[in-house]
Amino acid sequence: MLSRFDIMEQGGNGMSILLYELVGQDETRPFSPHCWKIRLALRHKGLDFQTVPVPFTSVRHIENGFDRTVPVLRDGKDVVQDSFAIAEYLEANYPDGRPLFGGEIGRGLARLVESWSQRTLHPFVTSVALMDIYSLLDEADKEHFRRTREAFFGMKLEEVVHRDPTHVEAFSQALNPLRATLKIQPYLSGREPGFADHIVFGAFQWLRVVSPFHPLKPDDRVMEWFERCLDLYDGEGRRVAAA
Amino acid sequence: MLSRFDIMEQGGNGMSILLYELVGQDETRPFSPHCWKIRLALRHKGLDFQTVPVPFTSVRHIENGFDRTVPVLRDGKDVVQDSFAIAEYLEANYPDGRPLFGGEIGRGLARLVESWSQRTLHPFVTSVALMDIYSLLDEADKEHFRRTREAFFGMKLEEVVHRDPTHVEAFSQALNPLRATLKIQPYLSGREPGFADHIVFGAFQWLRVVSPFHPLKPDDRVMEWFERCLDLYDGEGRRVAAA
Repeated sequence: MLSRFDIMEQGGNGMSILLYELVGQDETRPFSPHCWKIRLALRHKGLDFQTVPVPFTSVRHIENGFDRTVPVLRDGKDVVQDSFAIAEYLEANYPDGRPLFGGEIGRGLARLVESWSQRTLHPFVTSVALMDIYSLLDEADKEHFRRTREAFFGMKLEEVVHRDPTHVEAFSQALNPLRATLKIQPYLSGREPGFADHIVFGAFQWLRVVSPFHPLKPDDRVMEWFERCLDLYDGEGRRVAAA
Repeated sequence: MLSRFDIMEQGGNGMSILLYELVGQDETRPFSPHCWKIRLALRHKGLDFQTVPVPFTSVRHIENGFDRTVPVLRDGKDVVQDSFAIAEYLEANYPDGRPLFGGEIGRGLARLVESWSQRTLHPFVTSVALMDIYSLLDEADKEHFRRTREAFFGMKLEEVVHRDPTHVEAFSQALNPLRATLKIQPYLSGREPGFADHIVFGAFQWLRVVSPFHPLKPDDRVMEWFERCLDLYDGEGRRVAAA
């Protein structure tokens, strides 16, 4: 992990890949689902990289205000923002590594998985873990997070969170297509993991890192797949302990 | 279209590909979603084929009782059953045609799309169009269909059908991942259609052929995609008029 001082010292001198990723008070516990997708994608490609922890309120300063969302990837002179664009960049620039998409159809369908994940998994994680996320932010981020999210939801953060059994059961039902798929193959992408697995992993890892809430049973086929993903790339996902 | 008599005359003599597909009383209006997937997949690969119409109660006699579901494909000495297995067969045996999967990741993710389609689109079509399907069957099939489906649902066929606005709206909401994907690319598989498009097309074509009920507005992005799919391969899907 690098501090921003280190980056100024080394910047642009052919250093290894840099991944800017979101953190709260504890810089050793990155939690953004989109950043986790790219951590796994980089390891999938067998690439060395260093991470730069960034709190919410500093995201706008990354690479001279390049963009306002993380992850941001710097690779030599290239700066790429947005997790899907970064995965496309890695696939195009590191064709010798394991495939993330394996071609245009795999890339296109990974977009569909991303759309599904954003509309199914992300709202659920937010609904059960919003206060957990808030709690782990530093003071400046807490103020920013409460202000922007309360404006978005039109209610107090505390009122967003609900974990009643009906809500959790509806979420579990929405995972049935994953269960059916994982009954016939070990990964969503088939025999080996691909970026679509990293996408869905990101959402579950987000929940795992921020919250002690467990909506699914350990013997659920989706959780068995998630555990397999935590084992990938020398246990990259396990390097951060569960909340 | 061939009759079973023609097949006995020609069988096994290096004839073109045969696709056995489900029909009701009108043999010119195939409606099975799984058979439509393969019609489009065959055209996608640029292959000539002839279809053999089969009513429900004759499916078990196809190719000497090879299996009890359609589609069944005969290609020379090869007989393949199950739509996904047929698509895999076509991809492996006709690699020079346009790709259906384009590699293992595309194949794996098409399985996920199939699982999603079976659990999201198929139950909805059944719920709104079950009596429409029943109505187009011949008399022997009607008895068979009513007996087996009423045992499955535990109620009269007539009681299964419901089209209230809440039900239709929930279905429409479930399509949001498709809409988001189709906002950034013309097909679910990316820049060009692939078997995952044929899978989802099959479900919408099933509804189009059997029922005059329209759950989505024409300017819905999903319907715009469906119209694009109806245009594919010289309008293969349009050869059967809407109900």
